[in-house]
Amino acid sequence: MSSRALTALKHAEVIVGYKTYVELIKNIIVNQEIISTGMTREIERGAAAIDQALSGRKVAVISSGDPGVYGMAGLILELLEKKGELNNIPVDIIPGITSATSAAARLGAPLMHDFAVISLSDLLTPWEIIEKRLEASANADFVIVLYNPASNKRNWQLKSARDIMLKYKAPSTPVGIVKNTARRQEEIYITDLENMLIYPVDMLTTVIIGNKSTKAAGGFIITPRGYTV
Amino acid sequence: MSSRALTALKHAEVIVGYKTYVELIKNIIVNQEIISTGMTREIERGAAAIDQALSGRKVAVISSGDPGVYGMAGLILELLEKKGELNNIPVDIIPGITSATSAAARLGAPLMHDFAVISLSDLLTPWEIIEKRLEASANADFVIVLYNPASNKRNWQLKSARDIMLKYKAPSTPVGIVKNTARRQEEIYITDLENMLIYPVDMLTTVIIGNKSTKAAGGFIITPRGYTV
Repeated sequence: MSSRALTALKHAEVIVGYKTYVELIKNIIVNQEIISTGMTREIERGAAAIDQALSGRKVAVISSGDPGVYGMAGLILELLEKKGELNNIPVDIIPGITSATSAAARLGAPLMHDFAVISLSDLLTPWEIIEKRLEASANADFVIVLYNPASNKRNWQLKSARDIMLKYKAPSTPVGIVKNTARRQEEIYITDLENMLIYPVDMLTTVIIGNKSTKAAGGFIITPRGYTV
Repeated sequence: MSSRALTALKHAEVIVGYKTYVELIKNIIVNQEIISTGMTREIERGAAAIDQALSGRKVAVISSGDPGVYGMAGLILELLEKKGELNNIPVDIIPGITSATSAAARLGAPLMHDFAVISLSDLLTPWEIIEKRLEASANADFVIVLYNPASNKRNWQLKSARDIMLKYKAPSTPVGIVKNTARRQEEIYITDLENMLIYPVDMLTTVIIGNKSTKAAGGFIITPRGYTV
């Protein structure tokens, strides 16, 4: 967490968040009021945060990783716009460390060259669009970072994504899988496109697939930047 | 800066970095030795850091943003590998907030959906590869984040990139330009593909180009995640 985020939480009068994330910051909570709801209740949480802010209170909405990457920042702005309150409440978006780069740091340096970030969740996005982005980014030799590779209800998307990768990338292309990045029970696997499906993945897992130059060495995944070393 | 990065700097015996970045953390320096060199001296800095570490000292190599995104992390690992020392020195990569997400936070929420990160610097990468990635990501409707859009010596790449964007994206597509993100003399511009070239850009500028759903409203750029709000 950045010191800016910590300061914002300490100065908040109300903290709004998914209950699992509220649990992670409980040592920061002194006398802030907490509004927490379950997963998939994002709109409800956003509306509650706005109601509190409109009543004049300082509200902190928490998100894991970076609030601007598949997080709560956009939804709050969309809800404010719909209510016609977009310029009536000061909104400060505090960036954080998104899983693409926190997972990358645990794997070595896979993101030293151009990369694409793609969520495999087809709850809000048609699978055809996700498929097109997987094809395009694999064909143009991006390093590819997959968010939300699977959940209890979604179990076939990662295999489909990997089959698309294999049309353009070698089976030996390094793949890094990080589950629960930087949290308790973190799991880190370094594998390749051919073998990646034997590892457990869930909503809290990030999968990073190399480009043509990416190599695995000494327990690290390294994508060369192009320097002659 | 994260608290982990701050702790690492405080515990280091030697800090190695590009002189401009060393300047930014001078308030943290107590009695750590400083090794700083100019820009484009990355390999020299990396080699110096490794020499210090091999002599048994605790070394912190600093990078702006996230060291794993076009930063020093990969080069250090590559140099260690070449020396056959990859598993002889413990390396801890501490993730940071990369410009894609720190610039996004200043603009609103442009990265709420799949995005591609592309460096326009053709010093280490052939322009043909950069061009292919620009084409592929624009065609697949990614939000696109451009790093290193221009320098004193490179002045035509951003126009070329924008011309490729216009083959696939509407001239009215929102574009955000952030110079010196979160530093003194920060500049923020919200414009569109048609007008983006009139703004000043340099190596410390990040350019974010929306997807088909991205909109500009109330001084913010918002890419909807797909919720029905």
